[in-house]
Amino acid sequence: MIRLFTITAESIGSVSLTISIDAMGGDYGPDVTIPASLDCLKNNPNLELILVGDEAVLKHRLAEAMTTYRGRLFFEHASQCVGMDESPSKALKNKKDSSMRVAINLVRDGRADACVSAGNTGALMATARFVLKMIPGIDRPAIISTLPSIYGHTHALDLGANVDCTAEHLFQFAVMGAELVKAIENIDNPTIGLLNIGEEDVKGNEQVKSAAKLLESSTLNYIGYVEGDSLTAGHVKVDLIVADGFVGNVALKSIEGAAKMIGAGLKAAFGKNMFTRLAGLIAYPVLRSFKNHIDPRRYNGASFLGLRGLVIKSHGGADVLAFKTAIQLAACEAEQDVIRKISEQVEKTLALRETA
Amino acid sequence: MIRLFTITAESIGSVSLTISIDAMGGDYGPDVTIPASLDCLKNNPNLELILVGDEAVLKHRLAEAMTTYRGRLFFEHASQCVGMDESPSKALKNKKDSSMRVAINLVRDGRADACVSAGNTGALMATARFVLKMIPGIDRPAIISTLPSIYGHTHALDLGANVDCTAEHLFQFAVMGAELVKAIENIDNPTIGLLNIGEEDVKGNEQVKSAAKLLESSTLNYIGYVEGDSLTAGHVKVDLIVADGFVGNVALKSIEGAAKMIGAGLKAAFGKNMFTRLAGLIAYPVLRSFKNHIDPRRYNGASFLGLRGLVIKSHGGADVLAFKTAIQLAACEAEQDVIRKISEQVEKTLALRETA
Repeated sequence: MIRLFTITAESIGSVSLTISIDAMGGDYGPDVTIPASLDCLKNNPNLELILVGDEAVLKHRLAEAMTTYRGRLFFEHASQCVGMDESPSKALKNKKDSSMRVAINLVRDGRADACVSAGNTGALMATARFVLKMIPGIDRPAIISTLPSIYGHTHALDLGANVDCTAEHLFQFAVMGAELVKAIENIDNPTIGLLNIGEEDVKGNEQVKSAAKLLESSTLNYIGYVEGDSLTAGHVKVDLIVADGFVGNVALKSIEGAAKMIGAGLKAAFGKNMFTRLAGLIAYPVLRSFKNHIDPRRYNGASFLGLRGLVIKSHGGADVLAFKTAIQLAACEAEQDVIRKISEQVEKTLALRETA
Repeated sequence: MIRLFTITAESIGSVSLTISIDAMGGDYGPDVTIPASLDCLKNNPNLELILVGDEAVLKHRLAEAMTTYRGRLFFEHASQCVGMDESPSKALKNKKDSSMRVAINLVRDGRADACVSAGNTGALMATARFVLKMIPGIDRPAIISTLPSIYGHTHALDLGANVDCTAEHLFQFAVMGAELVKAIENIDNPTIGLLNIGEEDVKGNEQVKSAAKLLESSTLNYIGYVEGDSLTAGHVKVDLIVADGFVGNVALKSIEGAAKMIGAGLKAAFGKNMFTRLAGLIAYPVLRSFKNHIDPRRYNGASFLGLRGLVIKSHGGADVLAFKTAIQLAACEAEQDVIRKISEQVEKTLALRETA
């Protein structure tokens, strides 16, 4: 498996980490979550997993593995499942024993260091927020993920948790995001850009302009406004890009669409006739190696920042490789003690403001 | 030249059209605008062009062409130029005899049917709005352009004229955009999507939700919310996508960035070693044919909608091919009498509301 982060679960040292897995979540449920979990256990000797879901299903499927990974593989019964289209409020009210909820409870109770779910985003966010509560000083949770770029990759938040953000929210996202990037990328002072429709000071709406002022007067390594192309191919490398959840989500989906269009277009061009198909056959190894580099499965896993516990959202349609990436991300963030680091940084930032 | 629209300047019938060209605008000024203009005159026997700029420069460069295209090629003196970084307010105040302003004046005075400029967007918008005024019933101008998609192409607005839009603004954009698409694509009832962060009714911010209600109760062919990927590769074809200018601009730039990243990645993959270079040589004709299909120069030209005259903004860095596309778009919109159609549709929509 290609490594995206400098620190992955595979490189975890002697620290033992426990991740709870919503085994029933996602489009494929246990068909994906179980093989991905077992693969991770195989590769990471210090990893422990608690698979949460229907006991009958899990017991049956895990019988052999429970022997192989004795003391590292556990399961926890949950009698319910949250549907992929279920409304967050209904899931919160009616699904108190869902695999999603129980997996998050394990984080709250200190039995797991992080939780991974491919379940529906809205329900996962609502449940995680309700169960884990917010870090003091943070008003709203944000979704952060990683995008491939010409410089390697870029982290961006918020990717859809909030449809309306104030300047203060954007500033809080920057504080949290910077701490996450520092921890998982092992860099001291990540560069931060604010997503806007131009790089000049006069550009943008009021929220963005006010957020720029907050960032400029902070200790963060704020480099100014960046445009949409900076997410993947800007003229300078940016480690972290901060945006309103509406804008961030549209940008992310726009990039996914563009990649899909180009992929489909290349396929059609090489499939045109005998000659193009022959050319495609010869070019195939090169095209595939590049495709691997931008394979969305390598970037699967979005973290919910702002909560008092680690929750990683996997894409609902994740396959085994993609779900493994999400588990690795969870392990990496847990090993780096991201929640403690973010909480301390938020506290420090608040203290600085009070003395200012 | 590849044709993007069903109706291009090349296919214009017997109607004679006059386009004013800001000959000094853009990164390359007359080096691009003049050859592009002459090419268009050559291809379109019913086209007349008025090139606006410094008399000395134009007279010298056009001497020969003035004979070749006698009665179809004219120039108009303008003593000033608007800089690419000049602020809109300064351009408006201090550059009353700029090539940009004079070219727009020609539209206002009925001497030209449309104007094309590669000058700076902010100054062009401010000047066009000041000189031409708004269509009654429209509050704000919007920028519309075309993006390549798996279905051919998609039209989208607003791409950056407005950083904060109300639901009413979004609705007005939809009315104007639909009329433009109808006219230049020759389709009866273009499908309209509203850019959002999900397709479910509960998704989105207040502006988008209210705009959806306005669109649902209109006679427009509104199909609901669409996500960022619909701009290029959605699961259904959408003719027109409506967004806030902030969101639209970020989406556009995000797509440009993704395409750039993939282009750079492919180049690097094929340039790796002797074998990949050989594979690249064989695949080159196929890659090039696909690249032509998504070549941004084929999509150059954004229209400012909402004004009482046609103004087409070309990319500042446009080359001859790209600038020709913008002139063709201007000719196409002029031939289709887009301003009259939009004005009538806006009036009809307002009347419908009053009787409702």
